[in-house]
Amino acid sequence: MEAIEELQGLIKKLPGMGEKSAQRLSYHLIRTDESYNRALGNAIATIKEKIHPCPICGCYTEHDICSYCSDGSRDRSLLCIVEEPQDVLSIASSGAYNGLFHVLGGAINPLGGIGPDSLSFPSLLKRIEEGGFKEVIIATNPTEEGDTTALYIRHLLKDHEEIALTRLASGLPIGGDLGYADKLTLMRSLRGRIRF
Amino acid sequence: MEAIEELQGLIKKLPGMGEKSAQRLSYHLIRTDESYNRALGNAIATIKEKIHPCPICGCYTEHDICSYCSDGSRDRSLLCIVEEPQDVLSIASSGAYNGLFHVLGGAINPLGGIGPDSLSFPSLLKRIEEGGFKEVIIATNPTEEGDTTALYIRHLLKDHEEIALTRLASGLPIGGDLGYADKLTLMRSLRGRIRF
Repeated sequence: MEAIEELQGLIKKLPGMGEKSAQRLSYHLIRTDESYNRALGNAIATIKEKIHPCPICGCYTEHDICSYCSDGSRDRSLLCIVEEPQDVLSIASSGAYNGLFHVLGGAINPLGGIGPDSLSFPSLLKRIEEGGFKEVIIATNPTEEGDTTALYIRHLLKDHEEIALTRLASGLPIGGDLGYADKLTLMRSLRGRIRF
Repeated sequence: MEAIEELQGLIKKLPGMGEKSAQRLSYHLIRTDESYNRALGNAIATIKEKIHPCPICGCYTEHDICSYCSDGSRDRSLLCIVEEPQDVLSIASSGAYNGLFHVLGGAINPLGGIGPDSLSFPSLLKRIEEGGFKEVIIATNPTEEGDTTALYIRHLLKDHEEIALTRLASGLPIGGDLGYADKLTLMRSLRGRIRF
């Protein structure tokens, strides 16, 4: 059973996988179609050699420049700053944004050893100094680290008065329940209340 | 982004995977160590060629005969009948059973198109007719299909009066799945098994 145990052990290292789910998945893989296993196995084994960060914005791409940076139909006066590459996908697929992106590669977290030097602020500053942006939207997470990072960006861009600096609204999630909202979220949604 | 989307699409086909979990996992794989990805990818791609059912009991093995059937220290007068190969692992790892196994390959489910002919009853009967078993423990799931299968086995073995036929005690929640039972519950249900 060494092959099953090896597979289980490897699956268990994935985030959110426990003993039982790893076991179920590996037995599932023994039962499924072999060509599916080969396709999945190959996709996992080769993903890192196919994908690299876009040299301009830092989101993942298979091409020289990512599909957002090379898309002529996007609004080049809008820049959205996010923490991680997958945040680009979340925002792009919301359908409410048609500008460019900049991926920081994380958020400032002094306790976790992530200072501004670990993030892509130099290339952000370079892009902004090349001009053309009318608005920069800070879309870091509504967490302590995301807030710190947002403050740092505001400080970084303080001399660019031509640029409107905005941040994603915080508040109650759509479909959420007021009774389950935490105090901080309620406080933010009150402070950020809009004319109705 | 085709490679990420392909990977995500393949991960989403795994049981229990939704859109978001597939997305999280694929972005996790881009960030992790390449050697881990290669090991996991290879383990998934090759699992089906490494593993085959044991010709005697039907549980999965890499060898000619599985580790349970070839283990001389196990009690050869005890036979435990289970539905699926992973059930063997659950029962063996409970530590309360030291006999042999027989994997049926499922449970009788007329509505799902699984009749007795789809299951390994001929080889079960052959093993029992070769003699030597003093007790046969029916460890099918405590579901309608598992119960039907247990009744079928009782009918099948009705002429073998020399064999004590038992079934796992309740303690397993009705409608549950053997694969999710904790070791203690399995141990109790083995110790409290009742004459069927």
